[in-house]
Amino acid sequence: MIVPALITPMDRAGKPDPGALQEIIDRLEPSVDGFLVLGSTGEAVTLAPEERQRLLSGLKVKKPFWAGVGDESLPLARMHAEAAREAEADYFLAMPPRFYDRAMTREAFLTYFHGLTELGEVWLYHVPIFTKAEFPLEYVSELAQHPKITGMKDSSGDMNRLIYYRSHVPDFTVFSGNGLNLAAAVASGAKGAILAVGNVAPRLFAAVMEEQRNQGSASKNLAALAYDTALLFGKGGAVLIKQAMRHLGLPAGYPRSPFPAESAYWPEAEDLLGRLKEEGWLL
Amino acid sequence: MIVPALITPMDRAGKPDPGALQEIIDRLEPSVDGFLVLGSTGEAVTLAPEERQRLLSGLKVKKPFWAGVGDESLPLARMHAEAAREAEADYFLAMPPRFYDRAMTREAFLTYFHGLTELGEVWLYHVPIFTKAEFPLEYVSELAQHPKITGMKDSSGDMNRLIYYRSHVPDFTVFSGNGLNLAAAVASGAKGAILAVGNVAPRLFAAVMEEQRNQGSASKNLAALAYDTALLFGKGGAVLIKQAMRHLGLPAGYPRSPFPAESAYWPEAEDLLGRLKEEGWLL
Amino acid sequence: MIVPALITPMDRAGKPDPGALQEIIDRLEPSVDGFLVLGSTGEAVTLAPEERQRLLSGLKVKKPFWAGVGDESLPLARMHAEAAREAEADYFLAMPPRFYDRAMTREAFLTYFHGLTELGEVWLYHVPIFTKAEFPLEYVSELAQHPKITGMKDSSGDMNRLIYYRSHVPDFTVFSGNGLNLAAAVASGAKGAILAVGNVAPRLFAAVMEEQRNQGSASKNLAALAYDTALLFGKGGAVLIKQAMRHLGLPAGYPRSPFPAESAYWPEAEDLLGRLKEEGWLL
Amino acid sequence: MIVPALITPMDRAGKPDPGALQEIIDRLEPSVDGFLVLGSTGEAVTLAPEERQRLLSGLKVKKPFWAGVGDESLPLARMHAEAAREAEADYFLAMPPRFYDRAMTREAFLTYFHGLTELGEVWLYHVPIFTKAEFPLEYVSELAQHPKITGMKDSSGDMNRLIYYRSHVPDFTVFSGNGLNLAAAVASGAKGAILAVGNVAPRLFAAVMEEQRNQGSASKNLAALAYDTALLFGKGGAVLIKQAMRHLGLPAGYPRSPFPAESAYWPEAEDLLGRLKEEGWLL
Repeated sequence: MIVPALITPMDRAGKPDPGALQEIIDRLEPSVDGFLVLGSTGEAVTLAPEERQRLLSGLKVKKPFWAGVGDESLPLARMHAEAAREAEADYFLAMPPRFYDRAMTREAFLTYFHGLTELGEVWLYHVPIFTKAEFPLEYVSELAQHPKITGMKDSSGDMNRLIYYRSHVPDFTVFSGNGLNLAAAVASGAKGAILAVGNVAPRLFAAVMEEQRNQGSASKNLAALAYDTALLFGKGGAVLIKQAMRHLGLPAGYPRSPFPAESAYWPEAEDLLGRLKEEGWLL
Repeated sequence: MIVPALITPMDRAGKPDPGALQEIIDRLEPSVDGFLVLGSTGEAVTLAPEERQRLLSGLKVKKPFWAGVGDESLPLARMHAEAAREAEADYFLAMPPRFYDRAMTREAFLTYFHGLTELGEVWLYHVPIFTKAEFPLEYVSELAQHPKITGMKDSSGDMNRLIYYRSHVPDFTVFSGNGLNLAAAVASGAKGAILAVGNVAPRLFAAVMEEQRNQGSASKNLAALAYDTALLFGKGGAVLIKQAMRHLGLPAGYPRSPFPAESAYWPEAEDLLGRLKEEGWLL
Repeated sequence: MIVPALITPMDRAGKPDPGALQEIIDRLEPSVDGFLVLGSTGEAVTLAPEERQRLLSGLKVKKPFWAGVGDESLPLARMHAEAAREAEADYFLAMPPRFYDRAMTREAFLTYFHGLTELGEVWLYHVPIFTKAEFPLEYVSELAQHPKITGMKDSSGDMNRLIYYRSHVPDFTVFSGNGLNLAAAVASGAKGAILAVGNVAPRLFAAVMEEQRNQGSASKNLAALAYDTALLFGKGGAVLIKQAMRHLGLPAGYPRSPFPAESAYWPEAEDLLGRLKEEGWLL
Repeated sequence: MIVPALITPMDRAGKPDPGALQEIIDRLEPSVDGFLVLGSTGEAVTLAPEERQRLLSGLKVKKPFWAGVGDESLPLARMHAEAAREAEADYFLAMPPRFYDRAMTREAFLTYFHGLTELGEVWLYHVPIFTKAEFPLEYVSELAQHPKITGMKDSSGDMNRLIYYRSHVPDFTVFSGNGLNLAAAVASGAKGAILAVGNVAPRLFAAVMEEQRNQGSASKNLAALAYDTALLFGKGGAVLIKQAMRHLGLPAGYPRSPFPAESAYWPEAEDLLGRLKEEGWLL
């Protein structure tokens, strides 16, 4: 199950464009198994609450639909969750507060995530490359006992965490958020993946998952291509992904200021897109 | 020059209280040399833009007035800066975007801070304990050449940074944001300090600065008391500072959810407040 | 293929005991596929060069035999490699110098490892939990082109590294040194494992590898037991492993001073050993 | 009080040269207040125990004399301490074991350092850039109560540590090992410094200390020159220091293999040495 962590289209002045977002969703739909809107790749933290709300309202998503709602306090996260509920998102994907991570006691974790379950079904989100904060394993275990906390996106790439979830957290659905080691994640119990590279080459990563499931490991060439693709787009982030999407004719627009319109990794990315196209993995 | 990094009073439901903020400002005024509103200690990142605006509007600040405006994108930071300008803040204190710190190229740093100078006078802000992001020294040098970027608050506690500023950044005012090593910071060129502990014991830290200036070093007992105070309130953060202020009869209110109302460090803090009171350092 | 990273038996005064080492090798032999002597678990860095030499000389090892030789300079590492060659070790396992890791340029990496190949067949060793130093992937690629550098033990637990080796380093044998995520490592191309827990429960980890190979993933219960075992002995290190071996009647002796004779994790370990015994995994 | 952390002269083949070491000591003597032999800058960890012993024996040192003795176990450190005692060193400078830092419990710290006091007077040594290990403040406090543990070299550059020692560790002599922020260290209680740059420009750093003591802060130009010098030689390490010394006609020889004979920082260093020479700070 491959879900793109969608970019958020914005014009050059930084204005989000809900119509372009809908168009991208419609174009990706045949190649993916669901959608994440307003996650890390969606530059959600760069937007004001009303901008986030405007993007969600009116969106038509026919497949499983995650909406990012995490923020630096419960009132902010609830504000986003209300907008997501209005938009009929199936799951709230919530990273914990990160700025005051040292004040995030066990009680604070419980208060935050339980507070969100009042509004809908919650998935935990661990993405340390952006949050630079811990999500202690024992809190995952405890939170997962709540009937409305049903899954997790773990983007750490740390296989020990996935193995822990599989071994020690019963009845919990874990998706990887890390394209680099997706085959290993499947071998370690991941049931799906929510990926930034899902904006560009979702079927490549679906193929990796399938080979891992069917053959016990991904074929060497496919694994190498997936690794190179995830590595480069991981380094380039939303800046590079938007640039690649523009290149492919998708209305991705530009990153929000002060982030640059063009990535230093573009020359490498252009070569890689050529390789992906040749092998039939582009949209 | 000692400036408190003010807490933001909120009721138990998390609603910010501008009246209580004004009251705290008025009570602190005789003991301090200026005010920072909506900085890290002010839980600014936990508030929606309109909540921040409401707090600022109508505030009466008779001493130099810094307002925190940094956020994850330039449009958000400009929104906060506009509110600060309306409120007649003297300086915008701006930390750079941190979530996508890996995308913060030199150009992104320049775009962000120069974009803020269009609205007023800017101070750079480096607070890695919260942002977990670098603020490269060479960008400070380059930014400091802009006529409307006039100072910096550096809370890293890294003396090498202060020495670099003094040695290599001409005509630039640096304040420390770290109470632990304030005397050393003064010896390294800091002209003042913006401190969380300024909410509770500003005169203690003013005395440390004065002794360092007049005697070449702070006296041992004073240095020890300042170290212990800064260490404990540094660990306890806004949660502990608000609890101490409530204890002292100041209308500080409570931290925003999900942060706890009471700190695990309270027993130690109660002892320390006793010691501070005895020696005459409390408000 | 499971290889124990053997402990080094020492008496209470810290004197290494070659006879006890031979006895442990003989006892483990039916359950393992080779031996590593004087690796990280073997407390090699705590011994003087002649002590290391004395331990190796006269050792009889009938299965593939790795000897740890890495040190802080090439002359020291060559001294250890000469002793290993005398003892007819098949492979030198060499971690790079770590104290001056900042001075380890590409040329220094090549000089060091090429300098060792003059004495025998070399395996690279990356164990950041102890060395706290990087082993850049591009140096692995370049070193692996040397005909006498034939393999690597990577204990980082970082699956991306294993996937890189598989994808980008042709004709190179990689063993994991991390029991926590062994199944994922196999799915990522690891051909074997050199493990500290191999001193205590080698067949458990052999079973994990076999299930992963035959079924595409390890069974949940086995994965959980292996995870718990690797986690606890990883935290406890040689101190705990020696204590467990003494408990099991093996002449493991004591850690070298100043390391403690008994581990704070012993109560947990005793429970775990009970569980391992019940399920038939102990020696 | 400025003490050079002496390099260890070696020929191109890596053979240590005691005669050259004596010559360097004699040449530096008029400009310094003592000597450290076989510390971090002395590449001690790259040498075998007998090589270290040979270097020390016969050395004539007329000023206070520290000898580095720390190693990965107490038996090794005691072996070095015995050689240092033979050579009539005044103080053993001992860093704690670092490879197994996770096993360094409080008891292990006490065992290690107390074990060394049986042979002579001990100074604690904290140099995290090389050891990558913690030296918890509370262990310093406890160790400092021992009558034969009389001082510490702290190279962390962390002013909070120095302030802690001054405030909380009575009757304890602390030297800085960090040239970058020496003036601040003096303001924070450091009584002297043991510096790698002491091999090249000891009087510059003596002048910084003196100005800080006499004027309450170092003059801006001197501080800038000291900062630039410490920064560059800090980055370049023993490789660069030896190259600079050769350039100045001192018999420093070469770093031990695999470290390079010449530093990538040499072009910058050559400029800096010119500046130092002009201003009269070179030997």
